[in-house]
Amino acid sequence: MFVIGERINGMFRSVARAIRERDANAIADLARRQVAGGAHALDINTGPTGEEPAEVMTWLVQTVQEAIDIPLSIDSPKPAVVAAGLRACRGRALINSTTGAQERLDALLPLAQEFGAGLIALTIDERGIPRNAAARAEIALAIVARAMETGLPTDHLYLDPIVLPVNAAQDQCREALAAMPTFRTLCEPPPHIIIGLSNVSQGTANRSLINRTYLAMAQACGCDAAILDPLDKDLMDVLRTAGILLNQEIYCDSYLQSQPA
Amino acid sequence: MFVIGERINGMFRSVARAIRERDANAIADLARRQVAGGAHALDINTGPTGEEPAEVMTWLVQTVQEAIDIPLSIDSPKPAVVAAGLRACRGRALINSTTGAQERLDALLPLAQEFGAGLIALTIDERGIPRNAAARAEIALAIVARAMETGLPTDHLYLDPIVLPVNAAQDQCREALAAMPTFRTLCEPPPHIIIGLSNVSQGTANRSLINRTYLAMAQACGCDAAILDPLDKDLMDVLRTAGILLNQEIYCDSYLQSQPA
Repeated sequence: MFVIGERINGMFRSVARAIRERDANAIADLARRQVAGGAHALDINTGPTGEEPAEVMTWLVQTVQEAIDIPLSIDSPKPAVVAAGLRACRGRALINSTTGAQERLDALLPLAQEFGAGLIALTIDERGIPRNAAARAEIALAIVARAMETGLPTDHLYLDPIVLPVNAAQDQCREALAAMPTFRTLCEPPPHIIIGLSNVSQGTANRSLINRTYLAMAQACGCDAAILDPLDKDLMDVLRTAGILLNQEIYCDSYLQSQPA
Repeated sequence: MFVIGERINGMFRSVARAIRERDANAIADLARRQVAGGAHALDINTGPTGEEPAEVMTWLVQTVQEAIDIPLSIDSPKPAVVAAGLRACRGRALINSTTGAQERLDALLPLAQEFGAGLIALTIDERGIPRNAAARAEIALAIVARAMETGLPTDHLYLDPIVLPVNAAQDQCREALAAMPTFRTLCEPPPHIIIGLSNVSQGTANRSLINRTYLAMAQACGCDAAILDPLDKDLMDVLRTAGILLNQEIYCDSYLQSQPA
């Protein structure tokens, strides 16, 4: 399971403050703690900022890379900000994210190719959020087809079936799960399947419980990557345990203490 | 999710004592606590006993029925003991269990029909425990075919893909999950899919965590019944949460406090 830490995001008040004050130590600390918690990559999102976002993104990427040495997921709705982040990246990067909309694909597929980056692709298009698993698969197929036309290796794609808050769109949690096995059959090598986990529990009374339960369910359905909070120890314990139960890590009595795979 | 409480089993020392001393209060208390915890049915197993097991089974069934009024799952390797338990049952019962072996099916299918009982069927046969999902599906199909020949409604079947301890047969946890979606396609109405959950964590260092993680994974794969410990509050919280995420119960902020469906 490929874990992308979600915490370096200007939507969090403490991160917004660190960005405003260019507090490199606070950002570096948050990066190191997520890696210690089990992150294999870190999402980098400036959040809404009064400043030039490309400049903030560049500073964040440089600051994080001084602290840790794992891939970064450059997260912005603006292709120019994504490009700035990718240029600042030393190692392998991911782009977060395109959708199935033509305009986004036209902007982001070339960037993914130019930088050899992984591309997170939300199965959403000009018509909005799909209502069921089949509509998600239809958009996923269109994305895969476009990636193949462009020459992007299909295992650079991270297809996201769109996880919505359970308290607002309860039936969609199941539809997202049901879409996952179909995504894996679309091409060879198969795309990765990713979720933005914390969405599922937005505004609920039992956030961590809902997150970790949905994570185990998604892993059972073939999800192999997630953007989540690696500082949530209970969540990471479930992630490790589901990996053991899927025979992806070797069981030993102390598996929770060992280094995450 | 249909929850069968596992605690009235002579393998537990306190239950063995209660049986030996015919301590009806202890048995009644264990029955009531499991129902309060969320059980929809209770498994009844005499365990190894020096006494005549049919007599012990009859006493257990009568004692439990004086305390609570939900279906009982009559659990014994001996068809004569199963028959004694079924005769003592007032309401609907389940038989735990047949396998795909001819001799067991010949003995237990007629009992299920005679008493209108649900029949738990382990996907195991004369060749032993199957090694992968496909071999489980093959045995499941043979069981379904025999049930249809005999006239047992296929939704009286509870097919069990055999959950083995993760520390002894790690690859089999995934195979059991992978078998579940195939079971549902075998007939119309589809059979139920059941697991004996606690097996997965036998002898491990993190029993409750492994149990509840596997339960959520199994629910995501279509499992709709489980024999488990309803006194494990963390486990029952995950069970309720997975039900919410599969849109089987209606979300509200206090769903953990509401009466289980």
